Amino acid sequence: MGRAKIPYDVLLDYTAKILEKLSYSREQALLTARVLVEADARGVASHGVARLLFYESNVRDHYTFPSSPIEVIRETPLSLVVDGHHGVGSCIADFTMTRVVEKALNAGAGFGAVRNSNHFGMAGLWAEMATAQGCIGMAFCNTRTCAIPTFGRERILGTNPVCFAIPTARKTPFLLDMATTTVAHGKVEVYERRRKPLPIGWVVDETGADTTDTTNFQKLFRNSDSEGGHLFLGGAGEELGGHKGYGLGLFVDLLCAGLSMGSWSRDTFNETGGGISQFFGAIRLDLFGKRAEIESHVESILNQVRESSKASGKDRIYIHGEKEAEKRKESLITGIALDEATWRMFENYTAKFGLVGLGAP
Amino acid sequence: MGRAKIPYDVLLDYTAKILEKLSYSREQALLTARVLVEADARGVASHGVARLLFYESNVRDHYTFPSSPIEVIRETPLSLVVDGHHGVGSCIADFTMTRVVEKALNAGAGFGAVRNSNHFGMAGLWAEMATAQGCIGMAFCNTRTCAIPTFGRERILGTNPVCFAIPTARKTPFLLDMATTTVAHGKVEVYERRRKPLPIGWVVDETGADTTDTTNFQKLFRNSDSEGGHLFLGGAGEELGGHKGYGLGLFVDLLCAGLSMGSWSRDTFNETGGGISQFFGAIRLDLFGKRAEIESHVESILNQVRESSKASGKDRIYIHGEKEAEKRKESLITGIALDEATWRMFENYTAKFGLVGLGAP
Repeated sequence: MGRAKIPYDVLLDYTAKILEKLSYSREQALLTARVLVEADARGVASHGVARLLFYESNVRDHYTFPSSPIEVIRETPLSLVVDGHHGVGSCIADFTMTRVVEKALNAGAGFGAVRNSNHFGMAGLWAEMATAQGCIGMAFCNTRTCAIPTFGRERILGTNPVCFAIPTARKTPFLLDMATTTVAHGKVEVYERRRKPLPIGWVVDETGADTTDTTNFQKLFRNSDSEGGHLFLGGAGEELGGHKGYGLGLFVDLLCAGLSMGSWSRDTFNETGGGISQFFGAIRLDLFGKRAEIESHVESILNQVRESSKASGKDRIYIHGEKEAEKRKESLITGIALDEATWRMFENYTAKFGLVGLGAP
Repeated sequence: MGRAKIPYDVLLDYTAKILEKLSYSREQALLTARVLVEADARGVASHGVARLLFYESNVRDHYTFPSSPIEVIRETPLSLVVDGHHGVGSCIADFTMTRVVEKALNAGAGFGAVRNSNHFGMAGLWAEMATAQGCIGMAFCNTRTCAIPTFGRERILGTNPVCFAIPTARKTPFLLDMATTTVAHGKVEVYERRRKPLPIGWVVDETGADTTDTTNFQKLFRNSDSEGGHLFLGGAGEELGGHKGYGLGLFVDLLCAGLSMGSWSRDTFNETGGGISQFFGAIRLDLFGKRAEIESHVESILNQVRESSKASGKDRIYIHGEKEAEKRKESLITGIALDEATWRMFENYTAKFGLVGLGAP
């Protein structure tokens, strides 16, 4: 709409200023702002600065306590368990993954289980900390409930993302960062705004049956009643493999909440705080051979995938993480485009906190 | 119809005898027979004794060489890399996972990458070796090509299963053992026999477009031409998350073939042998806390999932591995049912190898 794109550093600085107004320390604000702006720079707006509203409500509603300490409650040469005491998710993730990668570099592999955390942004950012050091990286988290198990109708699990990253001979790793649900709820909201029926396989209604009725589904979803919800990858029932997606989502909850003795998705956002559980891992590539040789072999497989025949009307086969890496490169040159709602959010924050406007000359 | 069920031990002994006739050693035959019969006992006939025909053709066609040595080509306290020299898949998997679990018990975690292996049966059997010792278990393998990447039309990847297992307070672990494709090819064959159109989301034709035409698809699939093939979980395109399933399948190939410097799916079954690549992992639960406490917490999450509201017309929400564990219990009491094709296969082997018939009194 004629709005200018915002340079990365300007958006970073402005986002950090707002987070400071939300009672984040300068250090917490800068780290969290980077996590959010990185997502926008990569074209993943669902995890970008628009999340400030969610972060604000989390502080207001006593789900996030920025002054909480990060406590290591158990540690071995290969592992740590962290209690985040409902502090800032990105800082807890950074704290844990930094130590997980250190352990991997020292001992070969490192794993961190986290309880009582909060939203940590794109899982891929944490897995990338491992690939940058020549390790396979992993990051998982549970989330506020939105999804139902196969043959269920109650929202008891989250979008429960899995992220696996493997170094390649290129600068960018193979980076699979995916919600285990078919889609995140943001996509339903887009269909609602466009008044479009939902595709079969995204959600079920209060009886657990497939539905395309966007309006009715949104009513159910906004209601505190927990029936009707998102489907896992593969959709309802077993014919298209919905039980597999459900299995991946449940695995994430067992890994994150189970190992940390933390809250599973259904118990997150409770009276004590956000309570998100997470799990991180790093495994050194050179446990298995020369790092450069393995990276070249991985790259050669990826190149053969890229070069294989395309479906009619398609001209490219993507590798996971590629689109986002290319978008990021572009964003660093051209700046980051924000949608109108995000502009309005910033204008409101500008007024509310007495800041100099983001678009100001 | 009306055929008797076969006691587990009888089927085991008979299957082992046939494998010996295929030039497996007694030890290899017994282990492989157990892997196959376990699958039948659990109701997973696709990985059961019916696979003997495939195992026979693999020996005949020089993909499996039972006399090959198993060679450890690299080892650290946490890891090993194994070259199976196209030997017997179940024996290579057992060899590797035994060491992976030992490493986990000694060092906290263990990982094994394998190249030049062959079919190892149900992935879950290997992951269970870890859970039996209080570890999270993982097993992955690539396979003969059958699947296409998102926006592709060429079969370059396999069914590429992932298996994650987590110990619980019950005797049976959470055991997710899934092909990353929507379905394995055996399901297409069932639809072919029943002359039913395929569901959208299982396969694409030679142009990379969704198809329900079972007959035409089977023609494509049986042709050495590699166009048209299975879809990954989530189906074609991105609307239902097909790019996520493709990402999981590709991750499996990078993990198995990449780390072992082995063949990726497209290069398996080549002039030197079967060339399957595999990856195994075990991580001790007590890296994160007291094993019994974690197992109880995991079980409590699973119980809450089991007890959540069911979709209309459904009376049970399953946990992964549960159906198979219940079926196994039943099979040990009642014996194992074989389908007619499998009976005929055994009758042919009985005649060919001069054995005493399986159904004989």
